[in-house]
Amino acid sequence: MARLLIRNCDVLRFPASPALSSGAGLPVIDLGQDILVDGQKIQAIAPTGTIPLAPETEVLEAEGMLAVPGMVNTHAHVPMVLFRGVAEDVVLDEWFNNYIWPLESNLTPEDVYWGAQLGLAEMIENGITYVADHYFYMDEVAQAVQQAGIRANLAWAVFGHEGPAKLEQTIEFIQRWQGGADGRITTWLGPHAPYTTGPDFLRLCARRAREIGVGIHIHVSETSAQVELSLKEYGITPVQMLLETGVLDVPTIFGHCLYPSPADIDIMADHPCGVSQAPKTYLKAGMGLGPVVTLRQRGIPVGLASDGAASNNTLDLYEQMRLTALTQKHQAHDARAMTIAEVLEIAYRGGAQVVRRADDLGELEPGRQADIVLLRQDSLSATPRYQPAANLVYSICARDVDTVLCAGKLLLRHRQHLTLDKERIKQEVNARLERLVQRVPGRRIAVYPT
Amino acid sequence: MARLLIRNCDVLRFPASPALSSGAGLPVIDLGQDILVDGQKIQAIAPTGTIPLAPETEVLEAEGMLAVPGMVNTHAHVPMVLFRGVAEDVVLDEWFNNYIWPLESNLTPEDVYWGAQLGLAEMIENGITYVADHYFYMDEVAQAVQQAGIRANLAWAVFGHEGPAKLEQTIEFIQRWQGGADGRITTWLGPHAPYTTGPDFLRLCARRAREIGVGIHIHVSETSAQVELSLKEYGITPVQMLLETGVLDVPTIFGHCLYPSPADIDIMADHPCGVSQAPKTYLKAGMGLGPVVTLRQRGIPVGLASDGAASNNTLDLYEQMRLTALTQKHQAHDARAMTIAEVLEIAYRGGAQVVRRADDLGELEPGRQADIVLLRQDSLSATPRYQPAANLVYSICARDVDTVLCAGKLLLRHRQHLTLDKERIKQEVNARLERLVQRVPGRRIAVYPT
Repeated sequence: MARLLIRNCDVLRFPASPALSSGAGLPVIDLGQDILVDGQKIQAIAPTGTIPLAPETEVLEAEGMLAVPGMVNTHAHVPMVLFRGVAEDVVLDEWFNNYIWPLESNLTPEDVYWGAQLGLAEMIENGITYVADHYFYMDEVAQAVQQAGIRANLAWAVFGHEGPAKLEQTIEFIQRWQGGADGRITTWLGPHAPYTTGPDFLRLCARRAREIGVGIHIHVSETSAQVELSLKEYGITPVQMLLETGVLDVPTIFGHCLYPSPADIDIMADHPCGVSQAPKTYLKAGMGLGPVVTLRQRGIPVGLASDGAASNNTLDLYEQMRLTALTQKHQAHDARAMTIAEVLEIAYRGGAQVVRRADDLGELEPGRQADIVLLRQDSLSATPRYQPAANLVYSICARDVDTVLCAGKLLLRHRQHLTLDKERIKQEVNARLERLVQRVPGRRIAVYPT
Repeated sequence: MARLLIRNCDVLRFPASPALSSGAGLPVIDLGQDILVDGQKIQAIAPTGTIPLAPETEVLEAEGMLAVPGMVNTHAHVPMVLFRGVAEDVVLDEWFNNYIWPLESNLTPEDVYWGAQLGLAEMIENGITYVADHYFYMDEVAQAVQQAGIRANLAWAVFGHEGPAKLEQTIEFIQRWQGGADGRITTWLGPHAPYTTGPDFLRLCARRAREIGVGIHIHVSETSAQVELSLKEYGITPVQMLLETGVLDVPTIFGHCLYPSPADIDIMADHPCGVSQAPKTYLKAGMGLGPVVTLRQRGIPVGLASDGAASNNTLDLYEQMRLTALTQKHQAHDARAMTIAEVLEIAYRGGAQVVRRADDLGELEPGRQADIVLLRQDSLSATPRYQPAANLVYSICARDVDTVLCAGKLLLRHRQHLTLDKERIKQEVNARLERLVQRVPGRRIAVYPT
């Protein structure tokens, strides 16, 4: 296996216990360290020059860089980069019914393949090494992931109206790709949302998930209107529906979940679920904000998410991290809420918890997977450097990502892609735009209830 | 005078009437244009190749770039970049009393000079060509502005407890620098805020401003607590105090003004004032958000601001533009609020209105000043390009700034500074940090009332 020494960087290290709002200390930034990578894993982190250099070890000079874990994007629709900027300044039901769902009816598997490549390339440049993706034509997404060298949890989105046969097809996808790309790909079930599936279909999803031993990735309680609709139609909240249908018996990613009730939060605290937060989407759509602090106080994992670029415009978790800090302080009317320590917890360890990889991702420590991002710290906006962690949250941006490793393999070096062909991707995407942007009256993949 | 042809860029153009929330159209982005700059001014904008190329015209290739006006930073404390990251996760009174005001007592004129250079260099990289700055040791800031080649409105901040003699010293600064740096510098009075001056001192400021024919730049109604304190102490709001003391008889920049009452807004609509908005600061400090839509509906100019980097961490108006759109949608609970058209109005034309330069800045049109920024549009996060204006607000960031001209002169080309020495600035700033960050118990420049 290849040995690689990352020389003389600063390293973000987390304390043993996770930081909550209640005054926990900053994660430590150890200055002047070497990181030894052996195969897919970190073997050692120690002051620079102190790790003996074995023969045939490649050296990566990293002086002045800050090494951080690759981020986990806990909820995305990667190929939706194809629709970036198409639907702006419109309310959610119009966004779905008049734009996105009609447009998605245009997509071919090959469109999704190139959309996935574009989105994966953007995420790699932004220091993301793991994505939980929720879309369709997922074989093409899996192929793009394999080529990109990133990790992914892939769920083929399915609506209730598509029926049990379609669900079985998504299970065939799971079986084709589970453990694929040298173990970098895992696959889960992806029922779209309680409001687009209903309880019977969810019950079937839960049973099949248990039978084949996978988790479920689903949109939950995104808006207060969705919760009200569920209460009106079924007498229970969307989270209660997930409980009653057995979905919560398997590991679950909740996309968004801005409106859990106190009883919902009790349920969530007792089950293996985690919550994905994409505040840029929420602000932009006027949806409100999630109860991030409360969820974390109850021990429910919270991670960052990009959602799709048709709502979020960028696949940038550094932007989401900063917005999480800013919006939670705003919501609490308190500058002391969502400290630098806590938001760094969410951004790195929280993401790994949501995708249930807290044991080997989300931290840079010996024995863990070598998913490592090197950030430049020399921009003027990060000068001076009294508190490197403050700069990391409030000054450094995704454009400061210089180098990205995933599973010990270099994907990006000095912002040059080593696994994907950026110019080819742009050409392929641009060649498809005219066709993709046509909206055929009456043709859409689903209907958003209003 | 030098002639310069910027060749084959896209150009952001504004319609004749400003866009409000009420469904105004997008500003136009004209593709494939040449911009002819003659001396300090734009002489022509026309489809590429159609402007005859006179002898000795320098050509700037700009294919694929988007030309936008240089932004106006309507309220800043530029040298505070020296304290970036020093005071994090603390409430406002602690931020002032335990951090910033003690630290500012350490500053020497030379510190301010290098702090100003650092902040000006950062702003140039971020596409800002005009700053309304409010600080002290302003001769040093003026010298830095002269060297940087940017425009500035400079106000020497003064507290009431410093007395009339100090006010006269700030007027001497005004007289030294009014019209300086080839006309790029204007100077106004800078009483700090109603709560740190009181009505008598404000009355004196207003009288002296009228006498010497300058405007006033002042912090106003930043928090609800400040408004309550004013009502309790004087029986009037801070805005009413500005009216009663005669401040509003001269052109005025209101820093922040998140909490104007309806009566305050009536007053503001009848007087020559404009409001500076720095939403990153407001979110971070848990201060609330300003009534941007209402102010604009009443015809009160609103522009973007960076505030100081000790609260805002970056001097980045692209970040503030995006946050203005996102936070106003959030505040309205409506994705249709603060459209792309309206936030671009605020960012470019609004800024020029606040500093009372709407006649010659804030738009790219023949006859106006050649304050021009070229943005790259080829990042993956700005691909594809269905709506270039949507990309401008939600995808493009300050790091996409490639080239900056101010008054027809190149300040930045391919992100290389042509007027400032970036490495020297970093060295000078870093050499001062250890001394600057000492807090001497009991020593502070003012006291924030609690």
